[in-house]
Amino acid sequence: MASVDYQKEHPVAAYGYASRDSSGHLSPFNFSRRATGETDVAFKITYCGICHSDLHFIKNEWGNASYPAVPGHELVGIVTEVGSKVTKYKVGDRVGVGCLVESCRSCSNCADNLENYCPRLILTYGSKNLDGTMTYGGYSNFMVCDEHFIIRIPDNLPLDGAAPLLCAGITVYSPLKYYGLDKPGMHVGVVGLGGLGHMAVKFAKAMGLTVTVISTSPNKKAEALERLGADAFLVSRDTEQMQGAMGTMDGIIDTVSATHAIVPLLALLKTNGKVVLVGAPDKPLELPAFPVIMGRKQVGGSGIGGIKETQEMMDFAAKHNITADIEVIPIDYVNTAMERLLKSDVKYRFVIDIANTLKP
Amino acid sequence: MASVDYQKEHPVAAYGYASRDSSGHLSPFNFSRRATGETDVAFKITYCGICHSDLHFIKNEWGNASYPAVPGHELVGIVTEVGSKVTKYKVGDRVGVGCLVESCRSCSNCADNLENYCPRLILTYGSKNLDGTMTYGGYSNFMVCDEHFIIRIPDNLPLDGAAPLLCAGITVYSPLKYYGLDKPGMHVGVVGLGGLGHMAVKFAKAMGLTVTVISTSPNKKAEALERLGADAFLVSRDTEQMQGAMGTMDGIIDTVSATHAIVPLLALLKTNGKVVLVGAPDKPLELPAFPVIMGRKQVGGSGIGGIKETQEMMDFAAKHNITADIEVIPIDYVNTAMERLLKSDVKYRFVIDIANTLKP
Repeated sequence: MASVDYQKEHPVAAYGYASRDSSGHLSPFNFSRRATGETDVAFKITYCGICHSDLHFIKNEWGNASYPAVPGHELVGIVTEVGSKVTKYKVGDRVGVGCLVESCRSCSNCADNLENYCPRLILTYGSKNLDGTMTYGGYSNFMVCDEHFIIRIPDNLPLDGAAPLLCAGITVYSPLKYYGLDKPGMHVGVVGLGGLGHMAVKFAKAMGLTVTVISTSPNKKAEALERLGADAFLVSRDTEQMQGAMGTMDGIIDTVSATHAIVPLLALLKTNGKVVLVGAPDKPLELPAFPVIMGRKQVGGSGIGGIKETQEMMDFAAKHNITADIEVIPIDYVNTAMERLLKSDVKYRFVIDIANTLKP
Repeated sequence: MASVDYQKEHPVAAYGYASRDSSGHLSPFNFSRRATGETDVAFKITYCGICHSDLHFIKNEWGNASYPAVPGHELVGIVTEVGSKVTKYKVGDRVGVGCLVESCRSCSNCADNLENYCPRLILTYGSKNLDGTMTYGGYSNFMVCDEHFIIRIPDNLPLDGAAPLLCAGITVYSPLKYYGLDKPGMHVGVVGLGGLGHMAVKFAKAMGLTVTVISTSPNKKAEALERLGADAFLVSRDTEQMQGAMGTMDGIIDTVSATHAIVPLLALLKTNGKVVLVGAPDKPLELPAFPVIMGRKQVGGSGIGGIKETQEMMDFAAKHNITADIEVIPIDYVNTAMERLLKSDVKYRFVIDIANTLKP
């Protein structure tokens, strides 16, 4: 394979942090991005959230990494340039990009505003651009992307707290909507209280739902009830508590990516209830047929969301003043942050202060 | 436990075939049924289908048997007596009973016409009646049951071919409707071509769907296409065939009760596609999260159907001349039939000729 001069692949100089191998260690990296095309929007990145997927990716735990790997798919900032045919954005606008930077625009998924399920979608990092070069994510100084994939950040949302909405937020908002778990008065469970889980609680409460957090850690109870406003808390290992809640939930958003039992969750559901997986354990879940047949229950999945729905989520968040609970860090803290993330030692999302700490 | 005189539990003498132990061997049994109550309908049983559940039950393979065990939950016949407050049926009517003979009538499931998911439902056999006695099924000379649980058999349907609709028919009709897999032009897969599967093909075709049968047995192809009218056939072990059909189906009705892989079925689905389990394998299925997250797919269950929907299914069957493909047998052949059923050696449902072959 010919060696690539990352600084000269494209005409515009860029810099960021990249992992060079499966150690996942991130260090400064000079690369380049394309010039702003006719329908492109370029923006200076001010903040970028750290998603657990970033960690999987830089360590090649999903086997899809390509090095150098620049992660980051929760990036926000200020528009610096727009192409001649851009209609929706102008210089100075507050914008962001989530997990997607392109899709085929012609398949049935794209036609249904489900670019996230397009078989030819191009991810914000670790995918191939249409020109064959790799995509680089938001741990970097600026971004350029077709305006179709740009999300507007409403003025009342702080950019740092809004960044994680672009992945963690839409990942839980979309299934609440699609699976019909958004009707006031419904009762939903949220399994796992991390980056995804804490967003699920906030969105579900804003939708007028009764929310029960289900966690292995009894010490998250006060957090869940007092800080996040959940209505109830169940320790998943406490059989008595779990039995007391049997048959009470319309749906469950399961954010846990460690292998775990699904049957106790199915037991919490009412007839026609749904468990929606948004976390992806390494090993298959064990799904016996009887608990889904009895009560016509379902186990479904959901992966991020389409662009139209991501904007809708962002506007909903603005209306209800929803942002992620974050810990803002300088870029040179990123490797330590990754170690802490592995131990779930963050409430609830690290966000990198790109503008003030990333230097050329 | 006090011994029960089955002939004197209730005022009306009855006879049928029962299993006395987990050998599952069926032999003549004299018992009794209650007098026809105010809201009851009594009917002479003319035919009763043999469901695989009957075999599980008489051998206590689900651990829920109570002996003597009289199986049969696909029973049809002619009304002989109605209670003083019965409004829907009269002597001489053609009727049937499926899997349910009573429910609580007050829970939210019952209010939603989903008696089949009522936590206090009373099954046609092997359940306890409200008076504490056991329920006895349709391998017997007559039935008595509250009119709410009686299904009318339209005049144009033969009683023998209609009997299996009461379990096998509604078991596949209900998920096609509930999971929205009933829109003309949709493409559904039917996994397994037995009692349930062949009914699924017939109902799906009558709904205007494109139907692909998926089976481990290549030798069922001609049957599926020529006799049952399926549009296509996939051998599930043929990787090339399965890959050729990837992403083409809106839903799959999975009737297989042997342990089998679910991932190849998920791959056949379009975005938002659903695999619905109506067969219950002994062991849990292995469900990895990625294949459901990518494409927002679902694995759901469905168990028989409510009474209102069962009547709707029966009327739909009558309109489209749908009956089960059956082999009619005399009652004294029932043990041999069970052995053949275990080997799937029947096309596709045994139906016992009760009226002509069951003698006191």
